[in-house]
Amino acid sequence: MAPKAVVLLSGGLDSYTAAAIAKTENFALYALTVAYGQRHAVEIRAAREVSRALGVVEHREIAIDLASLGGSALVGDGAVPKDRPLEDASIPATYVPARNTLFLALALAWAETIGARDIFVGVNALDYSGYPDCRPEFIVAFERLANLATRAGVEGARFSVHAPLITLSKAEIVRAGARLSLDYGLTRSCYDPQAGARPCGRCDSCRLRARGFAEAGIVDPLMASNG
Amino acid sequence: MAPKAVVLLSGGLDSYTAAAIAKTENFALYALTVAYGQRHAVEIRAAREVSRALGVVEHREIAIDLASLGGSALVGDGAVPKDRPLEDASIPATYVPARNTLFLALALAWAETIGARDIFVGVNALDYSGYPDCRPEFIVAFERLANLATRAGVEGARFSVHAPLITLSKAEIVRAGARLSLDYGLTRSCYDPQAGARPCGRCDSCRLRARGFAEAGIVDPLMASNG
Repeated sequence: MAPKAVVLLSGGLDSYTAAAIAKTENFALYALTVAYGQRHAVEIRAAREVSRALGVVEHREIAIDLASLGGSALVGDGAVPKDRPLEDASIPATYVPARNTLFLALALAWAETIGARDIFVGVNALDYSGYPDCRPEFIVAFERLANLATRAGVEGARFSVHAPLITLSKAEIVRAGARLSLDYGLTRSCYDPQAGARPCGRCDSCRLRARGFAEAGIVDPLMASNG
Repeated sequence: MAPKAVVLLSGGLDSYTAAAIAKTENFALYALTVAYGQRHAVEIRAAREVSRALGVVEHREIAIDLASLGGSALVGDGAVPKDRPLEDASIPATYVPARNTLFLALALAWAETIGARDIFVGVNALDYSGYPDCRPEFIVAFERLANLATRAGVEGARFSVHAPLITLSKAEIVRAGARLSLDYGLTRSCYDPQAGARPCGRCDSCRLRARGFAEAGIVDPLMASNG
């Protein structure tokens, strides 16, 4: 029987690719989507489509009202920044405090319950928004925590947190997805809740995505179908 | 102005005492209660009363449906064990996978948002239910993670996770609370959702509490008022 892996699925391009890589490694996929008061709820619907495309064993959505704790443009505190230089190394207003700590904690809770020892997350630390909880040292520290935090860890199991995209550029991620024949037309990346079906094209996430496809020499099906 | 501290408040005796200790250290208290699909929702009401008694600056409740991930008698998977030997070192069915990882992640999110650098949690590793995420090494690992996970950490702030009860016996906790004139009649400890206003007296939590009061030579006001 294939070992189980919990894959965090946001509905974006990165998490789809990370989950597809888990599939190539012969894991049985258990997809988890966190509805955290996103302004871009369209991502949740995308996560459902991606789950179907991946043929996951199970897809769960768990709601948590992070907006009630505030602190980010992605949960309603302030505007999503537009046209920010992609070289800007500062952490933008779309940063959500402790988001990946929380998401990985939920993934760990489910993993332990279903007997999975592997968690896949689509973070990447190269073409990204400068979020501290996307860095390799964060992933390593969480993995260490996971083994101290759980009954399974105490009983000798070892959890692995896989971040297969962490050292890839967006162009490399897009190329990897193309090799796996992923349909990126199912995904949504735009941070702007006002954008509707057509991405805004001006937030960090849209621009990193556009640059990635351009550098990979591949047409983004999302833009093609909407253009 | 007093520095802010986020205190995790469950409505139980331990978290009340930990929060009261934070108050004696002159922190301004921001209480956070996680409604995680507890079968013992009575604890949430107790947390509100404890917050009032402590005079917290703010009390927030955040809902997260851990029952949908399953894996614990406390969220509806199986019966709450009764009359288990307190010397039994195994981890009981009331263990909730990754619970304290999740609670601390939420506390961290709120702390970063409001500019708090201190988090208080009432875990203790002596008279407890054997949960792995109540051990000192877990707290240390989370503190390390917190500084890697956050913008504040990257910018040089240092989060501290305080677990002032971690080495205390239940009797010592009860005595500490008595010195601080805490009204433990406000708290609820029973794991059993069927117990209603009167604690069941037979789950781990009731029995650890009873032994703690007995060893401290103090009458539990909760039992007195219900007896």
